[in-house]
Amino acid sequence: MLRGAPAGGPADFQTVRESNLGLVLRTVRERAPCSRAEVAAATRLTKATVSSLVADLIAHGLVREIGAAPARRVGRPGVMLALDERRIAAVGLEVNVDYLTVVAVDLAERELLARHVPFDAGAAGPQAAAERLAALAGATAADPLLADRTLLGVSVAVPGLIDSPAGVVTDAPNLRWRGFPLRDRLRELLGAAGLTGMPLLVDNDANLGAVAEYRSGHLAHTLDLVYLTGEVGIGAGVLVEGRPLRGSTGYGGEIGHIPLARDPLCGCGRRGCLEALAGIHAIVRRAVPDLVPAGPITGERVAAAVAATVRRAEDGDPGVRRALAEAGEWLGRGVATLVNLLNPQAVLLGGYFVPLAPWLLPPCAAQLDAHVIAPERGGCRVEASRLGLTAAARGGAAALVDALDTGRLPLPAPRPG
Amino acid sequence: MLRGAPAGGPADFQTVRESNLGLVLRTVRERAPCSRAEVAAATRLTKATVSSLVADLIAHGLVREIGAAPARRVGRPGVMLALDERRIAAVGLEVNVDYLTVVAVDLAERELLARHVPFDAGAAGPQAAAERLAALAGATAADPLLADRTLLGVSVAVPGLIDSPAGVVTDAPNLRWRGFPLRDRLRELLGAAGLTGMPLLVDNDANLGAVAEYRSGHLAHTLDLVYLTGEVGIGAGVLVEGRPLRGSTGYGGEIGHIPLARDPLCGCGRRGCLEALAGIHAIVRRAVPDLVPAGPITGERVAAAVAATVRRAEDGDPGVRRALAEAGEWLGRGVATLVNLLNPQAVLLGGYFVPLAPWLLPPCAAQLDAHVIAPERGGCRVEASRLGLTAAARGGAAALVDALDTGRLPLPAPRPG
Repeated sequence: MLRGAPAGGPADFQTVRESNLGLVLRTVRERAPCSRAEVAAATRLTKATVSSLVADLIAHGLVREIGAAPARRVGRPGVMLALDERRIAAVGLEVNVDYLTVVAVDLAERELLARHVPFDAGAAGPQAAAERLAALAGATAADPLLADRTLLGVSVAVPGLIDSPAGVVTDAPNLRWRGFPLRDRLRELLGAAGLTGMPLLVDNDANLGAVAEYRSGHLAHTLDLVYLTGEVGIGAGVLVEGRPLRGSTGYGGEIGHIPLARDPLCGCGRRGCLEALAGIHAIVRRAVPDLVPAGPITGERVAAAVAATVRRAEDGDPGVRRALAEAGEWLGRGVATLVNLLNPQAVLLGGYFVPLAPWLLPPCAAQLDAHVIAPERGGCRVEASRLGLTAAARGGAAALVDALDTGRLPLPAPRPG
Repeated sequence: MLRGAPAGGPADFQTVRESNLGLVLRTVRERAPCSRAEVAAATRLTKATVSSLVADLIAHGLVREIGAAPARRVGRPGVMLALDERRIAAVGLEVNVDYLTVVAVDLAERELLARHVPFDAGAAGPQAAAERLAALAGATAADPLLADRTLLGVSVAVPGLIDSPAGVVTDAPNLRWRGFPLRDRLRELLGAAGLTGMPLLVDNDANLGAVAEYRSGHLAHTLDLVYLTGEVGIGAGVLVEGRPLRGSTGYGGEIGHIPLARDPLCGCGRRGCLEALAGIHAIVRRAVPDLVPAGPITGERVAAAVAATVRRAEDGDPGVRRALAEAGEWLGRGVATLVNLLNPQAVLLGGYFVPLAPWLLPPCAAQLDAHVIAPERGGCRVEASRLGLTAAARGGAAALVDALDTGRLPLPAPRPG
């Protein structure tokens, strides 16, 4: 369980039964295959209570019986329980500067499908983007890969400041969206498409990337973890002792605009921000200037420029290598700052930083060794994410499963029959 | 109550009675004067349980009866409860590069006494410093201002990395102490002085400064708060949602060595650290070079140089004003970084930054406005602490009271008779 996960309200508002349903579901998740008696022992609930809760979870398609206990156990063989991964799906969407992503996972958070769609969300504007997102969600719900599954909910990751409880995109500078009620708009659009009453979660892409790393990354269950988005912007999703650090007004983790130098000019109007030195625009402008026009670059152009940068770096192009070494150094100074302040166990580089990691990480590591005061960087690992460009979308889907696990989401509709 | 406060172990190890004693004590602290019935209503404990717990708290000199309820209340007048501030005292010590501090507070955290003693802790070494601290604690316990009070415990604030559960100073670079078991040494020394079995707490000065601000500063009860020590080193004590952010290996809040520039050389051997640009040594070397010799400056020299800097700045000395403006700018870039990452409600400048604040704060604020991405700095106030040079010592004493409040300290010895 992610502590104090993003979705839903505080535990005080849960009924005891909702909270106990979540407790039993988590216990089955962690211990499956396991008997009702084992669940009772682990949760300290009575056997009668556990039986009643398990019956509910089975009726809603979340838990199933998988036959007798294995032979190595002594005593009368009991019926064992496991997660029922066949019945529900959680859908995670991500909107970014140059693409939309959709991921669906089952109750065990295994990926059922993943799609990328090139989309210029800045040029399209929030209303058109919401329509496109709703269409993607609808197509996903109807996809044969999700046949017979009930949708647990839909989440959307957005690169910007999000008022998550209200579902509003407060400010997404790289998309040029401000004050857009994305959740309400999606609710209308999904309702029109027949997906009514669907739980909807809107959150920041870096926060959801951190959730994805915590739930299913290669360093899963690391309690003090930072996920850095490597998109046009650089954002940090921070977990402190397993809790998302959002800050007092939701602006926590804004690493993209920490001042590292006197120059150059940043897209935000400030000077010397990390993003202006090591964001993807800055990198491709320096690495492959012949492929990047002056002015804003959007959409597929970014992906193409990154791919070209990788190709030329692999071919040993000295100018490209120099540009990546320089960006890696600045990234390292930014990450060193973050490590000095937060002392995390791991920093994971996501998004476009992943394909560039072979050239960014060595100079980044050298700066960490130079600037982190804790011996051996306080044990901090700095590595490329292995979740690729779907991290934030996966994290959103995982956050929905986590909300179910912690009794903050209603159970999905019961199975027919 | 400070959430997850520094002293003691996790709540799991408390007995229910210890935890309920703390709960009743906190309730009386928050609501006094209040009746036993009000305590029962607020805590949801039975009246019989509350009566038994209150009897214990009275016997140990923590709560007292203060007569009937005021006349405006309806119904039969009941006996009212309040904190008994007359019986116990908590002692907070602080060791710094150039002075020792001792503060004693009562159960309401009102200051009973405060003393500063010039002391060169780096030159003296940790053993001599421990002896001096034990002597200070002994003299404080015997001070007529604390007559008839039971000592709740003794805390020590140290500028450096502390393994607080073990009571060990892992690394205090500005004191040049490493791996010193301060708590065990103090336990022996205090035992020899007749203060046996005393609860002892050792923690980082910035963390305890943040505790002091949270408990009794002018912005008390601010949940997302940063306290910056302004000593030879600069450290950050960070509260996130009321919890100390310590980091995965205790190195959280190391703002002093975040890289802000390519130069100058820092005492730590790195280049361009915040401390090298805006630490007290850096400030007085640039502001009053005629008064500061080459090489390390220690002890009373620092205090004298700061006092001279203040005098000349008041007199309008342009060189001093320029040096302070420049330091304030660098401090602002460091604080902007911290505000971008943590989005706190307040940053409080402590130690020697307090007398220099009239000249440091304006350029610091300008840099914040320039570099913080959140509109209106995310609501963050940046102000001088009003707790002066006693903040860390006060915070340590408050942490002891908080440990009592949360059932993590044993009750002091019962009152005789």
